[in-house]
Amino acid sequence: MAKTVTAKAHTNIALVKYWGKKDAQLMLPQNGSISLTLDHFYTETSVTFDTQLNHDQVYFNDQLLQPAQSQRISRFLDLVRQRSGLHAPAAVKTTNHVPTSAGLASSASGFAALAAASSRAAGMDLDATALSRLARRGSGSATRSIFGGFVEWHAGHDDQSSFAEVIQDPVDWDIQMIAVVLKATKKPISSTDGMARVVATSPYYPAWVETAETDLTRMRAAIAAKDLAAVGTIAETNAMRMHALNLSAAPAFNYFTADTLTAIQAVTDLRAHGINCYYTLDAGPNVKIICAGHDTTVIKTALQQYFAPEQLIVAKPGPGITMTEA
Amino acid sequence: MAKTVTAKAHTNIALVKYWGKKDAQLMLPQNGSISLTLDHFYTETSVTFDTQLNHDQVYFNDQLLQPAQSQRISRFLDLVRQRSGLHAPAAVKTTNHVPTSAGLASSASGFAALAAASSRAAGMDLDATALSRLARRGSGSATRSIFGGFVEWHAGHDDQSSFAEVIQDPVDWDIQMIAVVLKATKKPISSTDGMARVVATSPYYPAWVETAETDLTRMRAAIAAKDLAAVGTIAETNAMRMHALNLSAAPAFNYFTADTLTAIQAVTDLRAHGINCYYTLDAGPNVKIICAGHDTTVIKTALQQYFAPEQLIVAKPGPGITMTEA
Repeated sequence: MAKTVTAKAHTNIALVKYWGKKDAQLMLPQNGSISLTLDHFYTETSVTFDTQLNHDQVYFNDQLLQPAQSQRISRFLDLVRQRSGLHAPAAVKTTNHVPTSAGLASSASGFAALAAASSRAAGMDLDATALSRLARRGSGSATRSIFGGFVEWHAGHDDQSSFAEVIQDPVDWDIQMIAVVLKATKKPISSTDGMARVVATSPYYPAWVETAETDLTRMRAAIAAKDLAAVGTIAETNAMRMHALNLSAAPAFNYFTADTLTAIQAVTDLRAHGINCYYTLDAGPNVKIICAGHDTTVIKTALQQYFAPEQLIVAKPGPGITMTEA
Repeated sequence: MAKTVTAKAHTNIALVKYWGKKDAQLMLPQNGSISLTLDHFYTETSVTFDTQLNHDQVYFNDQLLQPAQSQRISRFLDLVRQRSGLHAPAAVKTTNHVPTSAGLASSASGFAALAAASSRAAGMDLDATALSRLARRGSGSATRSIFGGFVEWHAGHDDQSSFAEVIQDPVDWDIQMIAVVLKATKKPISSTDGMARVVATSPYYPAWVETAETDLTRMRAAIAAKDLAAVGTIAETNAMRMHALNLSAAPAFNYFTADTLTAIQAVTDLRAHGINCYYTLDAGPNVKIICAGHDTTVIKTALQQYFAPEQLIVAKPGPGITMTEA
């Protein structure tokens, strides 16, 4: 009987965003990115390769997926089978510890956990850097979820040179996020299709790639200095420049909802009142507030004018990937 | 007794937007723009220069303004006094036929009417081109409101070369706008300050100026071809690229409200159902829908799911400036 490997990976939120591929096959991004891995949101995935199976069996939160639903996972497992030489179907059990429908980058923790569990189950012994390259093939942001704390994904120019590494872990200073989990709405466009449209049609895209490079340099310095205001300011501006690309595409699209605008305004107002807090957004309506732990109460109280307490989830810097074998 | 001149100017909505000055003193824009003058929204302004007055007296919708409130108008009148050699205070009566607080470019019709009435009252006899140069000094968009129909404002490089001219008037084909007049909220930033911040901080600004040039060429062709879909598509993309600049500024800002997002989505949905309609937005929450007259009912019906009938105002192509003397 083949061994079962279980991996646990945490999600991450980019502070300098990845937006746009330069190679969709190899999942090479147009620009590097920097993220913070969060403790509160994670995925646990077990993989067993089993020759007795007829095809991959994927359970997601205890529900067996139809082959059409697990196609992206099977394609990723094909890559592991090809590299390991182990040609057996896999039993995959994955549990997402992320609020239902929160859209909080579950593909980042999901493909990081799958890369780790499946490669080890297939007998490969990859180090963290090699794991981050492998996770990248499943989902760009998964590249960073192999590591804890502040992480940089180097864009690179081929499979070997595009990987993540730790900038700072553990994070021994007071920085956290408050995720504002908003009412899920139908996404106007997937992040894959959205970024492809942006790269193809936005006249601002070349300037984005340039400004991202500048932001990476500034963000590394802000993290080294443990400067919350600098980290937050760079992250907020970078995030809005990413969303500006979406508005500038043809046709234009955006991920904002009424609640998104409310949350952004609330953070802006808090800052005008001297609270050190900043917002960032990914390809969805949720807002993540970058702040210090000692401001949690004042920020939550202000946000509760508009949102229910259970919509406001505090997340601290989280750890890198862990694995167990059975 | 000096003569009283009354001028009536209509507002205009830009289809290729003006966003950013290259000379704040002379009000020279960074890029040219194209607009449609609208029949429904206008300003009527009477001016009499009167040596008996101690200072300018400005009545706005029958209310006497305090000097602090009429400072911008007096500064404009100073320019007219300087050019005409007539050094008398003025009595100004201006009435805005624009829904209260709609923020529908009332400075465009306002300064166009003021330029015409005050220059004629001061004894100057300016042709329309010269009037558009003069109106420009009051408010950039006023440059275009001297003319009716489709109008282009040439950016120029000095006072003489920065003026508007007619592209097509009368507009003898079926194009109109439906103004969606939304709940007025406090503007996050004035358009003057917003565009200054964009020019100073957006990494996308140089690409905006380039893309505006391309849009001008394409828009002229679309208007000449009387092609509603082309006019609408270019206008919508251009407007969102202007708003993208605001998101890309440091710090970011935006003029969207929840209702703005709703109106944009409604237009996008209507178009997905085969209705030939497009949206544009200026420095405020209101959405203007570009469409054909024969689609008025279907568009209004769809929008009335979200908005009251009195929030939806149909405006047809409007005329250029007119003046009467008494």
